[in-house]
Amino acid sequence: MEMQGEGGHPYIPRDLKLPGYVPVSLSQSTILSIFGISSLLVVSFMWILSGRFPKTSKTERWLMCWWIFTGLTHIILEGYFVFSPEFYKEKASLYPAEVWKEYSKGDSRYAARDSCVVAVEGITAVLEGPASLLAVYAIATKKSYRYTLQLAISLGQLYGTAVYFITSYLDGDNFAASMYYYYSYYITANASWVVIPTIISIYCWKKISAALQVQELKKAKLR
Amino acid sequence: MEMQGEGGHPYIPRDLKLPGYVPVSLSQSTILSIFGISSLLVVSFMWILSGRFPKTSKTERWLMCWWIFTGLTHIILEGYFVFSPEFYKEKASLYPAEVWKEYSKGDSRYAARDSCVVAVEGITAVLEGPASLLAVYAIATKKSYRYTLQLAISLGQLYGTAVYFITSYLDGDNFAASMYYYYSYYITANASWVVIPTIISIYCWKKISAALQVQELKKAKLR
Repeated sequence: MEMQGEGGHPYIPRDLKLPGYVPVSLSQSTILSIFGISSLLVVSFMWILSGRFPKTSKTERWLMCWWIFTGLTHIILEGYFVFSPEFYKEKASLYPAEVWKEYSKGDSRYAARDSCVVAVEGITAVLEGPASLLAVYAIATKKSYRYTLQLAISLGQLYGTAVYFITSYLDGDNFAASMYYYYSYYITANASWVVIPTIISIYCWKKISAALQVQELKKAKLR
Repeated sequence: MEMQGEGGHPYIPRDLKLPGYVPVSLSQSTILSIFGISSLLVVSFMWILSGRFPKTSKTERWLMCWWIFTGLTHIILEGYFVFSPEFYKEKASLYPAEVWKEYSKGDSRYAARDSCVVAVEGITAVLEGPASLLAVYAIATKKSYRYTLQLAISLGQLYGTAVYFITSYLDGDNFAASMYYYYSYYITANASWVVIPTIISIYCWKKISAALQVQELKKAKLR
């Protein structure tokens, strides 16, 4: 059983109105296990599959694993959130609804449907999700746009995360039910989408610059 | 003299609280003329200067004009807004304060200091502004990263504009003092930051893809 606040829900601020709120029914460990195990399955599948592509480096295989993981997370979980404004009323133990009921303990703006969170999640789910799956395909088939595409999505993820953290800070940074949820959900869960897109952006930037340098040296020689 | 609503200000929603609000003192035509004439001076200066750079195409000269214009707008006007939460109380006819008092008639979220608007404007003023000036330098000196940089800033501008419009829509799209201000300020003034970054993104994407294609063909030949 979870603790209920004045508003009939466990979220902060306590005076947040969520009429018809139905408490999360799965345990935290069940929710995290389902996410962890399905992510592990998807990543393992991609790692094995990518090994069968000719001349694909380990770096490219890790990138394909990241893009399928982040792409499916964006489309399935974040996509569900964007188009389900009343997920907190969900009675059946619908997995994505459980995820957002649980995550809202780290950031109640999800349950409160903060327009900035919805806008960022909308762009993430509708544009960056499918683009991430396209990145898997582009790496596998060595499309010439693969670095540009990965850079574009990574910068988008960084922009979204920046807006997400800055608006919370500006609005008082008081949306977590406890310090535990603040650090484990709000900080830790989002950290991957700061660290990994930063690394990929630098990697792609370098790859593109190297290609442009080669082309310019060639042009200079032709003159 | 401007029309004052219930709240002692001309903005919508009428119940927006802006204690200490001081009405805009410059006329609309003065505010627009100062912006128009200084922009024209900056762009003319850059057009003439860029003509003195060796082997700089007309496209590159136009790009340099755009980047200096958008960079200075981001740093001076949007930078002022981000770090002046009480601009609407400004008594002296301080030009940037006048601009935002006037623009708030098209979108009162500026005067109301909506956290999402502040976050997007903060990223724009602090990161994209200086990066735009760097783009002028990168084009002038033909740095190999110039297309990547221009693509990165343009995608950032598009992301920011998307968040800006989507959040307004989600929050009821009722922040303009009249249809006139809605279309002339909120829609028209922002349209340039949708159209131009889109064109530049496509242009840079193609340039980068072409260079990567050349590099890959070369690699394939070497095998």
